[in-house]
Amino acid sequence: MEYFFNPKGIAVIGATPNINKVGYSIIKNLLMGYRGLIYPVNPGYTEIEGLSCYPSVLNVPDPVDLAIIFVPAPKVPNLVRQCAKRGIKGVMIQSAGFAEVGREGEALQEEIVCVARETGIRIWGPNCMGIVDVVHKHVFSFVSPTIWEEGMLEGKVSLIVQSGLLSAGFLIDLMSHTTAGISKACSIGNKADVDECDLLEYLMKDPLTTAIGLYIESICDGPRFFSLCKASEKPVVVLKGGKSEKGAEAAMSHTASMAGNFDIIRGAFKQVGIVEASDFHEMAEIAKALAMYPHVNQNAGGRIAIITFSGAAGIVSTDLMTRRGLRLAELSAETLESLKVVYPEWMPPTNPIDLWPAIERSGSQRAYGESVKAVCRDPGVDAILMHLFVGGVVSRQLDLAYIAEMARKAHKPLFLCALGRREELRRFNTKAHEVGVPTFREIGRAIEGIAAVLSTSSSKRRGKYKNKRQQFS
Amino acid sequence: MEYFFNPKGIAVIGATPNINKVGYSIIKNLLMGYRGLIYPVNPGYTEIEGLSCYPSVLNVPDPVDLAIIFVPAPKVPNLVRQCAKRGIKGVMIQSAGFAEVGREGEALQEEIVCVARETGIRIWGPNCMGIVDVVHKHVFSFVSPTIWEEGMLEGKVSLIVQSGLLSAGFLIDLMSHTTAGISKACSIGNKADVDECDLLEYLMKDPLTTAIGLYIESICDGPRFFSLCKASEKPVVVLKGGKSEKGAEAAMSHTASMAGNFDIIRGAFKQVGIVEASDFHEMAEIAKALAMYPHVNQNAGGRIAIITFSGAAGIVSTDLMTRRGLRLAELSAETLESLKVVYPEWMPPTNPIDLWPAIERSGSQRAYGESVKAVCRDPGVDAILMHLFVGGVVSRQLDLAYIAEMARKAHKPLFLCALGRREELRRFNTKAHEVGVPTFREIGRAIEGIAAVLSTSSSKRRGKYKNKRQQFS
Repeated sequence: MEYFFNPKGIAVIGATPNINKVGYSIIKNLLMGYRGLIYPVNPGYTEIEGLSCYPSVLNVPDPVDLAIIFVPAPKVPNLVRQCAKRGIKGVMIQSAGFAEVGREGEALQEEIVCVARETGIRIWGPNCMGIVDVVHKHVFSFVSPTIWEEGMLEGKVSLIVQSGLLSAGFLIDLMSHTTAGISKACSIGNKADVDECDLLEYLMKDPLTTAIGLYIESICDGPRFFSLCKASEKPVVVLKGGKSEKGAEAAMSHTASMAGNFDIIRGAFKQVGIVEASDFHEMAEIAKALAMYPHVNQNAGGRIAIITFSGAAGIVSTDLMTRRGLRLAELSAETLESLKVVYPEWMPPTNPIDLWPAIERSGSQRAYGESVKAVCRDPGVDAILMHLFVGGVVSRQLDLAYIAEMARKAHKPLFLCALGRREELRRFNTKAHEVGVPTFREIGRAIEGIAAVLSTSSSKRRGKYKNKRQQFS
Repeated sequence: MEYFFNPKGIAVIGATPNINKVGYSIIKNLLMGYRGLIYPVNPGYTEIEGLSCYPSVLNVPDPVDLAIIFVPAPKVPNLVRQCAKRGIKGVMIQSAGFAEVGREGEALQEEIVCVARETGIRIWGPNCMGIVDVVHKHVFSFVSPTIWEEGMLEGKVSLIVQSGLLSAGFLIDLMSHTTAGISKACSIGNKADVDECDLLEYLMKDPLTTAIGLYIESICDGPRFFSLCKASEKPVVVLKGGKSEKGAEAAMSHTASMAGNFDIIRGAFKQVGIVEASDFHEMAEIAKALAMYPHVNQNAGGRIAIITFSGAAGIVSTDLMTRRGLRLAELSAETLESLKVVYPEWMPPTNPIDLWPAIERSGSQRAYGESVKAVCRDPGVDAILMHLFVGGVVSRQLDLAYIAEMARKAHKPLFLCALGRREELRRFNTKAHEVGVPTFREIGRAIEGIAAVLSTSSSKRRGKYKNKRQQFS
C-alpha cells in the first residue's frame, strides 16, 4: 500500500491546463503539497503548470510508482495495461462510468481487474476521489483545490469512504468547521481491487492514526473485515449505507454495492466492538472522541461528572446519558466538600455541578478549575463532561490547557460541550483540538462520544483479557 | 402581556455603571435597541450611561409599566411591593436565589407571589433572563451585550425557555451560526407567576411568530397547556428537561420544577400534535423548518424526492428517512423523461436523483434547476430534499431564489442539506434563510425537519377537519 500513500513519483493521466477541469485539479493539488516528481500525461500538451507533459505513460521517466487516471471509462483498461508495462505499482482510477452504471461499465471494470490479476498492478477505485493525507499534505485527488484555502485541520482520525463526492465535500466541511481533525481520508469508490480491508489493515499499523471511521455501502470480505476489526487496537466507527431496502437499491447504482442484510451485519458489529453511526457528522465526531481517547482507564465505567454553566444543559445531559446507559457519578463527601470552596453558601453542590453562581462568586477559571480538580480526585468518577459558553469573560479567563492536563493526569477523559459566538467558538475549538480535548456543539453528540469512548474501551479491554487467558492456558 | 413585550417605560432596579456587573448589561442592552424611556434605579448613583438614576422606584416618573429587577433575592419582595405601589404592571425578576435553592428562597418566592395576588402586578421569573425580541430589538435581559456584535438573525421561531444562562448562550450560538432565525426568545426561569401557558397564548397570536419551541422542566397547568397546544395553528416543538429520574432531581434544584412522569406526558404530546425534541439544537432546527412551512400542502404524504450531488448522501438520506416513516417518491415516467435532459446518456435517472454526472455535463444551475422543475410537476412528490456542496463553482452558479420560488409555487416544501467551507456556507445559509428555505448541515437533522413538517401538517389538518365536522354536525 505504501506506493499509494508515499509514492516516489506520480503520473497523472488525463492532466490538463484547463482550470475548470478535474484533470487540472489533480495536478494543482499535487503541486500544493506533494514533494516527489509529478508527470502530467496528455498527448495534447508539452507542458502543464511548468511541468513537462508526456504523450503517454510509457514515456514517463523514473522514478514513478503511482498513476492517477482521470479519462473517460472506455479508455481506462488499455491505460492500466500501459501502466503495468511501465512498471508502475499502483493505479488510482478516479473517473466514473464503471460497474455503477450498468453492463458496459461492469465489463470495463472486470477488464481492469483482469489486468491487475495478470500483471500484479494494484487498482484503487474506480469512481473514487483518492487520498487526502493531511499530515503529509498529500492530496492525490480531484477534490476542489479550495481545500487548501481554509487550512486543513490535522488530527488522528483516518477515514475510509466508499463514495466520491461526499468524501471531498464532507472532508472540507469537517476540517473547515473544526468538527474533526483528519490524518488520512481515503475514498475507495467501487473498490474493484483495493478495498476497505486493505486500507483498514494499513491504517491499523499507521502511527499517525488512532481511530478509524468508515462509510461503506458493502463489505467485500466479511470474515476478513470482522477479524481485522476484532484484532484492531484502534477503535473503528462504521456508517453503513444501504441499511434500508430502498437505500440498498440506491447503493447498487452508486457504487455497484450489494448492501446485505443489515440486521445480521449489526450483530457482527457489536461482537467485534465496532461503533455504529447513522450519519456522516456523527461518524466523524465519534471517531474524533475515540481518536483522542483510544484507550481510557482500564477500570472505566459509565459514571459521569457534569460541570456546567447552565442548569438546563446539565439536566438535558443527564436525560440523554441515561438513554445511552451512562449515569451521574455519585460524588464523594470529600468532593462535595471541595466544591464548597467555590460555591456560594446558599447553594449545596451536587452532580450536575451547576457552576453559574460559583462563576459569579469566584470567576470562571477558579470555578471550573477547582471543580475539575475535585472530580479528578474522586474515584467514583470515570469521565467528565464540561459545558461552557464561549464568547464572554467566562471562556476568556479559562486556562483550558491546565484543565486538560489535570484530567489527563487523572486518566479521566474530558469532553467539552461548547456553545458560543462563531468566531470565538472556532478559536476555542481549535485550542481544544490542540490540547487534545474533544469538543461538541450539541449535547446529544457529546454523549454519543462519551458512550463510544467508555464502551469501546471496555470491549477492547475484554478482548485483551481474553487474549491473555488464551496465552496462559 | 403587552407591557412585558412592548412597555412604555422600563425601570431597572439594581442598575450599575460597573461594566463587569449584570446590572450594567441590562442597561446597555436596553440602550442598544429599546426606544422607550429607561430609568436606572440605584440609590448610589445619580446618572448611569447618561440616564438619570433614581434612588427608588417610587421616584420614577411616567410613563413606566415594566420593572427589571436584579438585586439579591432577600431584597426583592419589598421592591415588588414598591413597584405595585408605583403603578407598574409587570416585574421581571432576573436574580436567582429563590425556590431553586431551598427553603429560604422558596419563602421569598412565595412572598412575591402573594404580592402579585394582592396587587395584580404580574411577575416574570425569578431566576430568568427575560426577553430577547430580535425583530423589535428589545433585549430586556442581562444576556451578554456581545449578542449585538455578530448580528442577530431575525426569523419566525419564538422560544420559551425555562432556563437562565442557557437561553442566552444558546440563543447567541443559534443566531451567530445561522442555525435558526429568532423572533422572540423568552426565558421564564422559576415561573412563579407568568408561565409557559401565558407565553404560549401570547405567541399563538403574535403575527411575527410562526412556530414555537419550548424548553421546559415542568408543566404548571397540564390541561391548559395541552388544550392551548391542541388549539394552536402554529406548530409547537417541546424539549422536556428531567425525563429521567436523575434529570428530574436536577430539575428540582435548577428551577424548582417537579418534572412529572414523562411516559404519560409523551402520550399527551402526541395527542395534541406537539413535536418532541431531545436536544437544544434539534429543538431549534425542527422549529426553524416548521416556522418556514407551518402549513404545507393539505394532501401531503411522506413521499420525498432527493436531489443530490453525492450518491452516498442520497443513500444515507434514504436509510434515515425509512427510519422516520418517510419514503422515496416513485417518480413518474414523465419526470424521469424530463431528467434525461440533463443526465448523461449512460446513466438512467432514478430517485435519489444523483446529479453529479448531470452537473458535470450541464452545469449546476441547469442540473439542479431542471431536476427541481421536474419533481415539482410530479404529483407523486410531497417534499424535496436537496443536497449540495457549498464552496465551489457548483453553489456559486446556483440561483437559489429561483429554485425556492419553483418549489413554493408547486406547494412542495424544499429542504436543503448543505456542506461546505465555513465562510461560504454561512453566506449560503444566510441567503437560504432570506428566501425562506431551511438548511441543515446534518442529514439526520434535515430528515427530522421534514418528518416534523409533514406529520405536523397532517395532524393539524386532522385537527381542522375534526373542527369542521363538529361545526357541521
